[in-house]
Amino acid sequence: MTNKSSDDQFAAGAGYVNGEFVPVSEARIPITDLGFIRSDATYDVVHVWKGQFFRLEDHIDRFLASTDKLRFKLPLDRTGLIAMLHRLVALTGLQDAYVNFTATRGSLPPGTRNPLDCTNGLYGFAIPFMWIAPYEEQPQGIRMITASAERTPMASFDQTIKNYMWGDLTAGMMEASERGAKVPVLLDRDGNVTEGPGFNIFIINDGVMMTPDTGVLHGITRRTAIELAGDLNIETVVAAVTADALNSADEIFITSTAGGIIPVTMLDDEEVGDGQAGPVASRLRALYWQAHDDPRFSTLVDTSLAEAAE
Amino acid sequence: MTNKSSDDQFAAGAGYVNGEFVPVSEARIPITDLGFIRSDATYDVVHVWKGQFFRLEDHIDRFLASTDKLRFKLPLDRTGLIAMLHRLVALTGLQDAYVNFTATRGSLPPGTRNPLDCTNGLYGFAIPFMWIAPYEEQPQGIRMITASAERTPMASFDQTIKNYMWGDLTAGMMEASERGAKVPVLLDRDGNVTEGPGFNIFIINDGVMMTPDTGVLHGITRRTAIELAGDLNIETVVAAVTADALNSADEIFITSTAGGIIPVTMLDDEEVGDGQAGPVASRLRALYWQAHDDPRFSTLVDTSLAEAAE
Repeated sequence: MTNKSSDDQFAAGAGYVNGEFVPVSEARIPITDLGFIRSDATYDVVHVWKGQFFRLEDHIDRFLASTDKLRFKLPLDRTGLIAMLHRLVALTGLQDAYVNFTATRGSLPPGTRNPLDCTNGLYGFAIPFMWIAPYEEQPQGIRMITASAERTPMASFDQTIKNYMWGDLTAGMMEASERGAKVPVLLDRDGNVTEGPGFNIFIINDGVMMTPDTGVLHGITRRTAIELAGDLNIETVVAAVTADALNSADEIFITSTAGGIIPVTMLDDEEVGDGQAGPVASRLRALYWQAHDDPRFSTLVDTSLAEAAE
Repeated sequence: MTNKSSDDQFAAGAGYVNGEFVPVSEARIPITDLGFIRSDATYDVVHVWKGQFFRLEDHIDRFLASTDKLRFKLPLDRTGLIAMLHRLVALTGLQDAYVNFTATRGSLPPGTRNPLDCTNGLYGFAIPFMWIAPYEEQPQGIRMITASAERTPMASFDQTIKNYMWGDLTAGMMEASERGAKVPVLLDRDGNVTEGPGFNIFIINDGVMMTPDTGVLHGITRRTAIELAGDLNIETVVAAVTADALNSADEIFITSTAGGIIPVTMLDDEEVGDGQAGPVASRLRALYWQAHDDPRFSTLVDTSLAEAAE
């Protein structure tokens, strides 16, 4: 490796490609990797805020659970993976970053179609922090639509494995854009709420906070919201959330590593509650950003790794 | 471009990366391309047999229909796309080749999450011909299992758009390998037959040939099988095929660009019919390979393109 921290080659972002650190624009995966041509991959996204990873260990836990479920053998162990992420961020010099790490199946050796015969790959990139909705816009809340596409069911793919098979979510994003909304939410075959592109969803109805139990990723920000609500003596009911409950909710908010806890103030063409960000969502949002100063959740990026040679 | 046909750099395969021709091992896509990190892509596979493309125009038609449905704008028009595929194969010098071409959404520009803001990409590769089951093994037929995973429904993604979201199919492949079978077939939520990884499925029951109508790719080999059967005065009923009908079928065969028409002689732990390749499947298989000499279906690869400079 011939990385230098003394110039700006990593300022737009840094990439990790099976052992090599490169500028993000040069980070590429082989066209024959089943991670691309079969979407046979899993990933996680952790963020860095003011120079600190947020809940890094929890993201690593989830990632390793996903790679186990897919029967991947990673080229790095847990310690090596964490060191890689530190270095990726350190190289960029970013204080606020969006950090993706991805395991892929790899390319098939000649003469086999069995995915288990592949050597698995490991990739990653750190880029400037990304927002579903910018921090300044969040207090007003965002507009959501109920998408036409149905979320891919658990019977087809275990949605607790964070995955790139976003056809349904992407269709929802385009539909939201067309209808002037920021995000879509997808229902399942039974008409229950699932999730949206990159986020979980919560509702509050008559003081009861709910989030769907199945068919969704177990988001780290979702968990944070549940824990912070617990600190406020608000219990979260994790159970099926019907479309009717969503439509009649007093408050709706979404949770995502890409922006935290974000109030939803318009659903389809109707105001949610009185059309203002709700008190619970607003309270949780404030607590969420305060939690970034809590040493239980935060890990200082080891910037010395930007200088490391090999 | 600095391609040379005078050495073996393309012998293992050639890749196409947004305008550049490179050895397949060097063909890579950006890690930030939504074609990878959202599986927001479509593709097609055409094969070359004895120096001729088979049904090239039909594959191009399907590919362009898929790119339209995804609202992609390709960097090449139809003529340019065809010329690219000819050159890709010509560079390899292969007489029998498996030729993939893929359109991707591209990378998001800063500050937007709308897929329609991306510049779409075009990739491809030509490698030695791939078989679901080698030609010599096909007369004995292959073993198939009914997979546990349910095929992703049309309500989640339009399966007539050839796509890389193979989580359900890959799980089926691993299950088939574990159970000593060559391939899986996936059912839908209603228990009807859909398709398997890279192929369509046909059954023959009491002289009636059937293939599923919905939830499946409209395969070019599927179409060829229907047309060839028509030449034999065998009508194909394109309609829902129940799991019961599959289990009691006199004959089963699969159709794929990766191997043509392949008899299935074991389903789960039962013989199909008398456990031998059925007469209709065997007849269609012979006609399928004969059709490769039919000028209506075949297009000679323009090998002069291997010499072309820029």
